[in-house]
Amino acid sequence: MKKSIKILTLVAVTLIFIFSSINCTKKAKELDKTIVEPTFNLAIAKAEIEAANKEFMSLLAAADSIGISNLYTKDAKIMMSGMPSIVGNEAIKATFSGMMKSGISKINLTTIEVWGSEDFITEEGTYSLFAGDTEVDQGKYVVIWKKEEATWKLFRDILNSNLPVK
Amino acid sequence: MKKSIKILTLVAVTLIFIFSSINCTKKAKELDKTIVEPTFNLAIAKAEIEAANKEFMSLLAAADSIGISNLYTKDAKIMMSGMPSIVGNEAIKATFSGMMKSGISKINLTTIEVWGSEDFITEEGTYSLFAGDTEVDQGKYVVIWKKEEATWKLFRDILNSNLPVK
Repeated sequence: MKKSIKILTLVAVTLIFIFSSINCTKKAKELDKTIVEPTFNLAIAKAEIEAANKEFMSLLAAADSIGISNLYTKDAKIMMSGMPSIVGNEAIKATFSGMMKSGISKINLTTIEVWGSEDFITEEGTYSLFAGDTEVDQGKYVVIWKKEEATWKLFRDILNSNLPVK
Repeated sequence: MKKSIKILTLVAVTLIFIFSSINCTKKAKELDKTIVEPTFNLAIAKAEIEAANKEFMSLLAAADSIGISNLYTKDAKIMMSGMPSIVGNEAIKATFSGMMKSGISKINLTTIEVWGSEDFITEEGTYSLFAGDTEVDQGKYVVIWKKEEATWKLFRDILNSNLPVK
C-alpha cells in the first residue's frame, strides 16, 4: 500500500512535469509563429514592378491611354518638367492621350534599382521616348509604387530629361 | 517517517511545478521581447527629415557647399533636368558650389509627405530657389533618404521645375 502510494506520487510528479514541458513548448511555438511571419521579398517586388513596366510599354505602343492611366492609382501624380504636377487618373489619361497624338509611339523603361517594403516601393529607372523610330527624349525617373488590392500601381512618377534644353 | 516522506514528495512536486512555470514564463517573455522590438514610427521619421531639410536650407544660405554635400550619401545621385545624373559626393559638392557662384542664395524646401520604413524613406516635396530676394525657380522633388549611422542622408534627389522653359 505504502509502495503503491509512492509509485502513484512518482507517476503524478512525472505527469505534471511532462505536462508542464509540453505546455511550455507549445506556448513557445505559438510565439515563434508570430515571429516568422511571411517576410517581404524585395527581389519578387522588383520582378513584379518590371512586369508592370512591361505592361506600361505595351499599352503605350498600343496607344491605350485608358489602359496606362489604370496602371496609376486614382490619386496619382505625374511630376513633369515645365508644369505643375498632373494629379489624378483623368488628368493622367489626358496627358498620355495628348502624348500619343503628338506622335509618341514607344517608351522604353529600365529599372535600375528598387527600395521599400510591403506597401510602397520606390524605383529608380531610365526612359527613352520614341516617335516612330526616332528617339525624341531620354532621361531618368523615380516612381513610388503603391500596392492596391495586391497590385503595384504608380503613385508618384517624377522624371526629367538628360538632354539639354534646345 | 512515512508522513515525512509524503510531505517531502509533496514539496518536491510543488517545487518542480513552480520551477517549470517560472522557466516557461521566462522563455515566453524572452520570445515576446523579440516580437515587440521598437517599432518604426513614420511621424518621427518625417520630423527627422524635416529637420535635415532645415539644415539643408541653413547650409545653402551660408553658402556651405561642403556641408550640403555631406548631407548626401557618398554614392548619392542628384537627378536634374537637362543633364545626366550627378553621381557621388564630390560631383554634388561641385554642383552646389557652382549654384552658389551663379547667385543662388536661398532655397525653401517643403515636405508634402513621406513613405517608407527603417532604412529608406521616400519624400515628396516642393522647392523654391532664390537669388537675393528674387524667386528664380520653383518646382517639385522626390528624395529617397537612406539611414546611415543613425542619420537620414539624401540618397536619390530628383527634381524638376514647374515653370515653362523660356
